[in-house]
Amino acid sequence: MAQQHLDPPTDPTAGPVTSDALAGYLRAQATEFLRSLRQHRETGAGAASGSAESVAAARALRRSARRISGSLHTFRPLLDTDWSEGMRPELAWLSGTLAREHAYGARLERLLGALNRLSGAAALPAQAAGANAHTAPKGSLTVGAAKAGALLDRQLTLARTRAHSAALQALGSSRFHAVADSVAVLASEVPLTPAAPATDLRPPAAAAADRLTDAVAALPLVTAGHPYNAEALVHGLSADTAPQPQDAPWHQVRLLLRLHRYARELMYGDACPTDVRLLAAGQALNRHRDAAEAASAAASAARTPRIAPATAYALGVLHADQRHEVEAARFAFQQAWQKEAVRTL
Amino acid sequence: MAQQHLDPPTDPTAGPVTSDALAGYLRAQATEFLRSLRQHRETGAGAASGSAESVAAARALRRSARRISGSLHTFRPLLDTDWSEGMRPELAWLSGTLAREHAYGARLERLLGALNRLSGAAALPAQAAGANAHTAPKGSLTVGAAKAGALLDRQLTLARTRAHSAALQALGSSRFHAVADSVAVLASEVPLTPAAPATDLRPPAAAAADRLTDAVAALPLVTAGHPYNAEALVHGLSADTAPQPQDAPWHQVRLLLRLHRYARELMYGDACPTDVRLLAAGQALNRHRDAAEAASAAASAARTPRIAPATAYALGVLHADQRHEVEAARFAFQQAWQKEAVRTL
Repeated sequence: MAQQHLDPPTDPTAGPVTSDALAGYLRAQATEFLRSLRQHRETGAGAASGSAESVAAARALRRSARRISGSLHTFRPLLDTDWSEGMRPELAWLSGTLAREHAYGARLERLLGALNRLSGAAALPAQAAGANAHTAPKGSLTVGAAKAGALLDRQLTLARTRAHSAALQALGSSRFHAVADSVAVLASEVPLTPAAPATDLRPPAAAAADRLTDAVAALPLVTAGHPYNAEALVHGLSADTAPQPQDAPWHQVRLLLRLHRYARELMYGDACPTDVRLLAAGQALNRHRDAAEAASAAASAARTPRIAPATAYALGVLHADQRHEVEAARFAFQQAWQKEAVRTL
Repeated sequence: MAQQHLDPPTDPTAGPVTSDALAGYLRAQATEFLRSLRQHRETGAGAASGSAESVAAARALRRSARRISGSLHTFRPLLDTDWSEGMRPELAWLSGTLAREHAYGARLERLLGALNRLSGAAALPAQAAGANAHTAPKGSLTVGAAKAGALLDRQLTLARTRAHSAALQALGSSRFHAVADSVAVLASEVPLTPAAPATDLRPPAAAAADRLTDAVAALPLVTAGHPYNAEALVHGLSADTAPQPQDAPWHQVRLLLRLHRYARELMYGDACPTDVRLLAAGQALNRHRDAAEAASAAASAARTPRIAPATAYALGVLHADQRHEVEAARFAFQQAWQKEAVRTL
């Protein structure tokens, strides 16, 4: 596939973008970070499992942490090096810690939904497979699906509870307070380099777009564009329990797409148009990541000692199903990406 | 999808096709049947597992039996009713009995090939998974794949051996000798009705084409045309062990496509052009049938008592993989079918 160029991340009719845009974006995201943090504290963050408000606040916190971190990376020549290089790993630690609880919950929901679909019970709510393990109708495979659901429910709920505790602990730690203090400083004073005011933001933003384009060009898109290529399930039964190496370049493109998206937001400001192509491509890559992790969780549950063969069989079907979701997501990405960039305001 | 009309099964420049064409075709197929039978007897049909020549002879025997039976069905108004209605079930019994041995062998090869592919060992010969069960590298899932291969090898080899004995027994039975006698009569004297010489073959041939077109129109081709629609694996974990009802209309189209193909052969005679669209559609439906039966064999093996969870897991992955092959075959059929009929001589 010929290398495609991305929509330039600024309005092509405008002139150079100055460091004011960077400072304004970082201040706004820092303010949003502090607002979400306050909201998270006020909405029962201490509960065993967060309320809807506290979940939304944690999501907003992660959202702004990712944007700050991404902008520090893309526009690092304009920012005080020591400060920004100290800040990024702390923001990554924070958003990673906060993301885990949500991820386990979403993974469980995805897997129980798939088990229901595979049992021909798509009309039931997602929780039913786990909850009804003891009332499942006769037939070893259906019992297997119910037991697999109950096993995944147990394992992923435990993981989620632990992630919740870890997140609460993190939010009370001195490490977190240091991050929050740095963000509070950022909300009023962005540490730009002396040369920053004379620097055009367009070259670093274009470089972020180029890194994305190059990474996409290295993906096996020709294969991905052939439906049912059966690539995602190769090694589906290999002994290696590590995440599949074939997924890594796709995960990397997902991160680069996000950086490009944040750079666009920053460059366009409030007038940032929605790029439906980027949106669809990003959604496909999220689905790719979620399905890959769900497949891995099913394989991992199958290694639980002393499970029944019927449970293991259902987990095998589930694993393969999610690896096909991985393949489907790559196809969807390929389809989205090959479309010409469409701009809708 | 709008109903598409098939290429008329005769050369449109030609006039009516007379019963001579039917009589000629049936005589030729009957002669071929008798030739294959002689060859089968001469090439060690009694061996535990047939030689290459005897396998080829059995295939040729089935091939002509199917063509005779199909023609009796499509052109039944021209043939003596009692005779042709007595003959068809006997030919079906014979070709079914002969087909079974081949089918078990092909199913085993398909499943072992898939297990190798899923273990990331695509370079190994298909038999390796079963044969190397005891030397498989460490890692429970790989051991699971090897054990699953060995289990399938045991079950399907046993089934194939039984089918071989059944076929030999059938070929020595008085029931078979009656069929062979009828075919010998057919080779010299086709029992046409008194009205047959004045009957045009085109209407019954067109009716066969219409039955195919109608059956295809009833298939869920819109869904099949959307890659990764996940339809084939719905009920993948349901308790029902019977063949999936969703496969039946596709199997039916496969049979109707075959009848249409035989009618074309008969109508065109030696000048029968290859219709690449029919060819591709037929291959997709064969793949559909093979994958559906392989998926079913994997599910059935998983119900073997006292298997290890790792074996069951591998069989679950394998089942899902083959059900995705079913889905891929439907997609391939849809793609082949929507192409305009292309005629190459």
